[in-house]
Amino acid sequence: MLKPLGDRIIIELVEQEEKTASGIVLPDSAKEKPQEGHVVAVGSGKVTDNGERIALDVATGNRVIFSKYAGTEVKYEGKEYLILRQDDVLAIVE
Amino acid sequence: MLKPLGDRIIIELVEQEEKTASGIVLPDSAKEKPQEGHVVAVGSGKVTDNGERIALDVATGNRVIFSKYAGTEVKYEGKEYLILRQDDVLAIVE
Amino acid sequence: MLKPLGDRIIIELVEQEEKTASGIVLPDSAKEKPQEGHVVAVGSGKVTDNGERIALDVATGNRVIFSKYAGTEVKYEGKEYLILRQDDVLAIVE
Amino acid sequence: MLKPLGDRIIIELVEQEEKTASGIVLPDSAKEKPQEGHVVAVGSGKVTDNGERIALDVATGNRVIFSKYAGTEVKYEGKEYLILRQDDVLAIVE
Amino acid sequence: MLKPLGDRIIIELVEQEEKTASGIVLPDSAKEKPQEGHVVAVGSGKVTDNGERIALDVATGNRVIFSKYAGTEVKYEGKEYLILRQDDVLAIVE
Amino acid sequence: MLKPLGDRIIIELVEQEEKTASGIVLPDSAKEKPQEGHVVAVGSGKVTDNGERIALDVATGNRVIFSKYAGTEVKYEGKEYLILRQDDVLAIVE
Amino acid sequence: MLKPLGDRIIIELVEQEEKTASGIVLPDSAKEKPQEGHVVAVGSGKVTDNGERIALDVATGNRVIFSKYAGTEVKYEGKEYLILRQDDVLAIVE
Repeated sequence: MLKPLGDRIIIELVEQEEKTASGIVLPDSAKEKPQEGHVVAVGSGKVTDNGERIALDVATGNRVIFSKYAGTEVKYEGKEYLILRQDDVLAIVE
Repeated sequence: MLKPLGDRIIIELVEQEEKTASGIVLPDSAKEKPQEGHVVAVGSGKVTDNGERIALDVATGNRVIFSKYAGTEVKYEGKEYLILRQDDVLAIVE
Repeated sequence: MLKPLGDRIIIELVEQEEKTASGIVLPDSAKEKPQEGHVVAVGSGKVTDNGERIALDVATGNRVIFSKYAGTEVKYEGKEYLILRQDDVLAIVE
Repeated sequence: MLKPLGDRIIIELVEQEEKTASGIVLPDSAKEKPQEGHVVAVGSGKVTDNGERIALDVATGNRVIFSKYAGTEVKYEGKEYLILRQDDVLAIVE
Repeated sequence: MLKPLGDRIIIELVEQEEKTASGIVLPDSAKEKPQEGHVVAVGSGKVTDNGERIALDVATGNRVIFSKYAGTEVKYEGKEYLILRQDDVLAIVE
Repeated sequence: MLKPLGDRIIIELVEQEEKTASGIVLPDSAKEKPQEGHVVAVGSGKVTDNGERIALDVATGNRVIFSKYAGTEVKYEGKEYLILRQDDVLAIVE
Repeated sequence: MLKPLGDRIIIELVEQEEKTASGIVLPDSAKEKPQEGHVVAVGSGKVTDNGERIALDVATGNRVIFSKYAGTEVKYEGKEYLILRQDDVLAIVE
């Protein structure tokens, strides 16, 4: 299992077909392109200068959209994941 | 439903025709161009280093103007939205 | 009515003729050029990391000078305005 | 009267002749060049994130030297002034 | 022994063969490439502006993935190590 | 007299001959070059966001070495000085 | 004696021969190259915005490795030293 650090989260990407079904389409190619995925793990939160740990707003199981160019791709035990910071998450799809 | 994170808000763009009607026109093309829209969802606010969450000043239903180049466009359930940070909002149209 | 957010203010530009009359002239074209206007609306102030809202120093009705290249122009109900941050205001003309 | 905002101050430039008299000369043209002037108005100070206003160290009447390239020139009621931030002041000439 | 300072940690790199076995593969060469290793030493944590020392989230013995381009390589007593900051660690492999 | 502001100090440069005598020599021309001087005036210290003034570590009379490219040269009452920030001072020569 | 200011330390470089003996070798020339030395003096620590002075983690007598390109070289009383900030120290060799 991969356990992200701090304000990082791990995303399992939603396949292109599923993505079309959920209706996330980019109307304007000149804009930053969002992408969709499921959160499979979240860090324990960022620690501030006051020594306080701020819990994340996203939780495991959330479906989220995020900037396409954010994060780092990894393949772990045969599956592809994306590790990004919570701040790169634009919205939760509820 | 899309639920924005932190200090992000979701905007439904005002159509070009409606925009002219409301009177937002750009007198000088050399300047940054504002755009108009309705707020359809707001994040729960940014968390500061003190661990305090600062509620947003814009609310769902507000009509706002913002920088044209700010944010990320998404299409969700057939409608186009823009996700941007509250700081990109210039003013509320009351 | 346009209601600016946070530390933003809305300026009604002073016409070129009036500006000459008030005596704001740029002696050196190599310098940043200030411009003059009336404040027609002010935001409720910036919220700091301590969650404190800092009221603005400029008020509606103030005549101010500011950097010519600051802010975003908007036309609202037939009039032109400039939306800028208080920090772009150089001085109040009293 | 011009009333500067925050940590800004207004300077009346010392004429070139007077400047030579006071003995501020630049020995090395490759260095940043300081300039001399009289403070004619000071802002009420910068407001910190704690909501505290920090009074300025320079006062009206001070003779100061500052970086030549700092600030914005304005002409007001026939006189030329320079508006700059206190941090651009290098030293007070006592 | 090498003792890293502050928020730095020392990594013993996992060999390429072992890396393939653990299944970390880069599906997209255009992305930042993560790398895998074992933590052999950790600093005592970063000291904040409040004078508080924040203990690290990674511990000696952890297997971690991190950005390939992060850190500084050293060879010490015949072995190669990488010294990097905890923030360059993407996730712990559990 | 020149009174520096905040965290600035005023240095009287040590002559090239004297400098060689004290033994500060640059072994590698590719590195940033330090220079030597006497502190003739110090500011009252930087004011932090907490409104606290932090007294300087260097005092009038100290002999210091500092980065050659730091600061601003001024000539005052026939003597050359350098005004720089305390952070540009590398060490005190005791 | 040279007394470094704030978070600066003074290093006596370890000779190339000694360095090879201690086993610090750079396996990859494309990476930032660390260098080795002995700490001969340390500053009294950085003062934070809270007015608190944070003591350094390195002490006189420590053997440290640091980035090769960090710091400023000085020759004092016939010996060469390097003055750098503690944050440029990667690890203490124990």
